[in-house]
Amino acid sequence: MPVSTPIAATADQLSQVTYNTDGLVPAIVQEAGTGRVLMMAWMNDESLRKTLETGRTWFWSRSRQEYWCKGETSGDRQYVREAFFDCDGDTLLFVVEQEGKGACHTGEYSCFYRAFGPDAGAAAE
Amino acid sequence: MPVSTPIAATADQLSQVTYNTDGLVPAIVQEAGTGRVLMMAWMNDESLRKTLETGRTWFWSRSRQEYWCKGETSGDRQYVREAFFDCDGDTLLFVVEQEGKGACHTGEYSCFYRAFGPDAGAAAE
Repeated sequence: MPVSTPIAATADQLSQVTYNTDGLVPAIVQEAGTGRVLMMAWMNDESLRKTLETGRTWFWSRSRQEYWCKGETSGDRQYVREAFFDCDGDTLLFVVEQEGKGACHTGEYSCFYRAFGPDAGAAAE
Repeated sequence: MPVSTPIAATADQLSQVTYNTDGLVPAIVQEAGTGRVLMMAWMNDESLRKTLETGRTWFWSRSRQEYWCKGETSGDRQYVREAFFDCDGDTLLFVVEQEGKGACHTGEYSCFYRAFGPDAGAAAE
């Protein structure tokens, strides 16, 4: 079973993250090892701190207006191995160890399972 | 020199993309081969169509309120090899061949060159 590893972010690093007018920042989740992009979801300041402190991904659900820890119900947990912020500080990237059936609520491993194009469909699978 | 390859998206695929209240959708750009996440920027309906039709990445600049084709000025072009939309249709993923010095305007190869953590810094480089 994977181990949770907190990341001790500095105050300077955290201050460089910028949030939109709703107080949110997009967070890309990529699988360690495979490099596969699994999903994108939104974090606010508090869910970013929870993510770094617990070593598990915490997001803010815009539709439900609540925090959710990925996989807490489904068992498809994400253990954070590396965390980055981009040049403008307005997008985050988490490299995770994905547990269980994957990241997508549809049952697909990645949320990006549909490709554009004539012979597309399950091309990303 | 890389070749541009248009992607013939179907009307059904395009109709499944959802835009936010500003008419925008986040677009993640990942490097083909390495799997490295290079950047995230925004597209509107028109820039998505341009991207698929030209095989080069086109974004909408929120600050300048104009279309920009990545690398048109700098030479650091992105040639689209695969394009995906996620389960909710509200995030896009482009797998590209990155030309030149990389994707970031700072001169770093990826925009995600800063890691959270005590020994962080150029950890993503």
